[in-house]
Amino acid sequence: MATTTWTRRHILSLADFTVAEYETVLQTAASFREVLSRRTKKVPALQGQVVANLFFEPSTRTRSSFELAAKRLSADILNFSTGTSSLTKGETILDTAKTYLAMGADIMVIRHQHSGVPQAIALEMDRLESGVSILNAGDGQHQHPSQALLDLFTLTSLLDTDNPRLELLSGKKIAIVGDILHSRVARSNIYSLTAAGAQVHLAGPPTLLPKLFLEILDGEQKDKLYLHWEIEPALKDAHFVMTLRLQKERMSANLLPSLREYHQRYGITRECLELCQPEVKILHPGPVNRGVELSSDLMDDPRLSLISQQVTSGVAVRMALLYLIGSSK
Amino acid sequence: MATTTWTRRHILSLADFTVAEYETVLQTAASFREVLSRRTKKVPALQGQVVANLFFEPSTRTRSSFELAAKRLSADILNFSTGTSSLTKGETILDTAKTYLAMGADIMVIRHQHSGVPQAIALEMDRLESGVSILNAGDGQHQHPSQALLDLFTLTSLLDTDNPRLELLSGKKIAIVGDILHSRVARSNIYSLTAAGAQVHLAGPPTLLPKLFLEILDGEQKDKLYLHWEIEPALKDAHFVMTLRLQKERMSANLLPSLREYHQRYGITRECLELCQPEVKILHPGPVNRGVELSSDLMDDPRLSLISQQVTSGVAVRMALLYLIGSSK
Amino acid sequence: MATTTWTRRHILSLADFTVAEYETVLQTAASFREVLSRRTKKVPALQGQVVANLFFEPSTRTRSSFELAAKRLSADILNFSTGTSSLTKGETILDTAKTYLAMGADIMVIRHQHSGVPQAIALEMDRLESGVSILNAGDGQHQHPSQALLDLFTLTSLLDTDNPRLELLSGKKIAIVGDILHSRVARSNIYSLTAAGAQVHLAGPPTLLPKLFLEILDGEQKDKLYLHWEIEPALKDAHFVMTLRLQKERMSANLLPSLREYHQRYGITRECLELCQPEVKILHPGPVNRGVELSSDLMDDPRLSLISQQVTSGVAVRMALLYLIGSSK
Repeated sequence: MATTTWTRRHILSLADFTVAEYETVLQTAASFREVLSRRTKKVPALQGQVVANLFFEPSTRTRSSFELAAKRLSADILNFSTGTSSLTKGETILDTAKTYLAMGADIMVIRHQHSGVPQAIALEMDRLESGVSILNAGDGQHQHPSQALLDLFTLTSLLDTDNPRLELLSGKKIAIVGDILHSRVARSNIYSLTAAGAQVHLAGPPTLLPKLFLEILDGEQKDKLYLHWEIEPALKDAHFVMTLRLQKERMSANLLPSLREYHQRYGITRECLELCQPEVKILHPGPVNRGVELSSDLMDDPRLSLISQQVTSGVAVRMALLYLIGSSK
Repeated sequence: MATTTWTRRHILSLADFTVAEYETVLQTAASFREVLSRRTKKVPALQGQVVANLFFEPSTRTRSSFELAAKRLSADILNFSTGTSSLTKGETILDTAKTYLAMGADIMVIRHQHSGVPQAIALEMDRLESGVSILNAGDGQHQHPSQALLDLFTLTSLLDTDNPRLELLSGKKIAIVGDILHSRVARSNIYSLTAAGAQVHLAGPPTLLPKLFLEILDGEQKDKLYLHWEIEPALKDAHFVMTLRLQKERMSANLLPSLREYHQRYGITRECLELCQPEVKILHPGPVNRGVELSSDLMDDPRLSLISQQVTSGVAVRMALLYLIGSSK
Repeated sequence: MATTTWTRRHILSLADFTVAEYETVLQTAASFREVLSRRTKKVPALQGQVVANLFFEPSTRTRSSFELAAKRLSADILNFSTGTSSLTKGETILDTAKTYLAMGADIMVIRHQHSGVPQAIALEMDRLESGVSILNAGDGQHQHPSQALLDLFTLTSLLDTDNPRLELLSGKKIAIVGDILHSRVARSNIYSLTAAGAQVHLAGPPTLLPKLFLEILDGEQKDKLYLHWEIEPALKDAHFVMTLRLQKERMSANLLPSLREYHQRYGITRECLELCQPEVKILHPGPVNRGVELSSDLMDDPRLSLISQQVTSGVAVRMALLYLIGSSK
């Protein structure tokens, strides 16, 4: 299915993803999207393999997406969630992962509220020479690679359905608006979008967008990243606007004034979209706080919102990721 | 499998079910009951299709029944329950449903504590021309169509195992006893049982059975519905007695005196069954409050209780419903 | 697959297990271990059959192990857990089991915090002539047969991978250390290990190891069981040391001084292992309280710890148990 040979065992971060890897993910996801348009939406690619979903941080949406992707590859799935877990009994996270390894898991999809947990588990799995693959489904404020890859697939597919590829985004202006500081979605997207040659403009209040953020990239990528504390320069002539979910807890931490004031200054409305390119499209990783980071009517406008396409892309991209790491064994 | 062509996309309420639709459900369920008697109890009817169980109100029993029905049709299943959901993050119910639509759900089975939620989701799915089917698994005090259909299948199968059909219930007297006001089970059964030509006698305390209830039906169906504030006239010569679950919260709302007094006046006991036909049978949607709406010994008497048959019928009827709406696409 | 004919319908306790039954379980598990080493780790043995996991007491680890075992036998699985259950609605446990029976469950795997629940359900299932099999996945302080059988498989496989059998343990000294009184794992292991001819030495504080424990066995088995309130005589020349999980609640019940003092007197450390045979191995049913019943470095030492092997054995042994009772129908 993929033309390039895939050698990466774990998918933990996009910081070191190569152009060839991005292209392979896009091509593989495109071929799975074709599978999903059939009446029988299954392939036997991972039959008999075990995918363990270890969600230490609850998430119905991402877990369902990975679960469906794994089912459509005919894998067997084990779900672990913290509510009912023996973690309450004092076991460490590495012990939990090693238990699923010993049961026979081939791939572990891991979400955790603390940055670095999937990396730590991957190191331990490699130290044990287990051959198990780890897929980071979101760790703290660090990375959420499958989300950025599904965003990349959504954007490039919009520009060329049959042949999504990085160069389609070259020179496009993409605004990422909101709580950048706490967003693993933003961090992963910064790598993938600049790798595709897009100009990425971050916008948010100074408390949620420290200047240090510009240091995240090296070399020539660095010149594609811009930082704004006002929304207008970020939106000006933008081809795409990616809004981020605002965690309401930020207000009690005094990082934000009020939701209403936040919406007035950083919320995306029909009015402020007039600054953008006429064919501008909006992305959001979901779930949306309607009327906070995005006005409700924009979210429901299929000419403007790519939110549904993002969810649909999610299943195809996650099938691609599971397939690539599952087949490289 | 079914002889009639099925055209209904959603199953939301029995209020407008036609005689032909009832008969098709009964015949289809009967053929699936045959599948369930085999050692390998699966058919590939919905292979590769996705059934999303969206249970905003918890229910192990109904969810398990739908889950097993979907598995036996070889569908892929996604379970959503409120405990672990992003609803706690402020997403609307329609947003949740649209997320599962975008993931690729073909059928959504929906339970919600508020009346009208499945209807609202069905309207939105149709507006989006999604082709998705909605199956109401119980909404507030409104409807629970699969429960009434499994009751209908249980009753007609008892009277003719090989050929369950509506006319078998023509002229039969069926008492429905208990908290009618708050019961979606009663509301759905009123439609199906009178459509079959049965005489339906409602009995309960005045606070839980307002007179307005007689207005639920139109035309000639109306003459088949009777209302009693005492249990005796309802039980007199009844062929079947359907008891309803009493929600204990009703007492704190001052709608009921005490459980003991309720049991004395409206609980079904061996003694009060003497008023009924000698071959009378008892139904209950479960779970039973033993000793409240039904005395414990009656529940366990296989000559009197149809409760186990109802549960078994549930899987066959839900297979039929999923099959009919899944195949009509 | 198994050479002996299996006739036992339920697996509730090891108290009356025969030598032939132990040997059949070991042989069957060995053949499934071979299946698990293939890339496609599935067999169609229980296709179309329904395994209901009724976990009235939460347990991610044991439930996942049974779930994976059932999936690898191609069974359909229904999960029930108390968090979301209708037990909160007042239904009895037998009513819940009968509901799953009526839905079509073929095997029920039951865990409950009270001793005797699986037995009570098995009796009711037999009274109803249902043909359903009950597998006890841990009941109160009574029995946990699948844990003891996986321990037996782990130990005998270590001594002869290709042909694990009881006689390999004949004359071996096995220390079981910790809270024996409250341990269903210890109770089940006492039966299986003495049946294999091992010398079983129990060690723990007097409050957690009453003298009456010696009465658990009859006949010649009795002479293979020893009781110590100090750890040293139990460890002296031991071939295997099985530590038990310490429930921290025991301290508030005044059965223990402090965790620190407990660890000093009954915790297994590298130092106290010097009393044992040079090739001694450690077992623990998991999850481990690191630094309480077992020092952290021992747990992670693959030359000493059999904990991972126990988890791996668990899937093969549970496949064997489900297969044996599922095929005997």
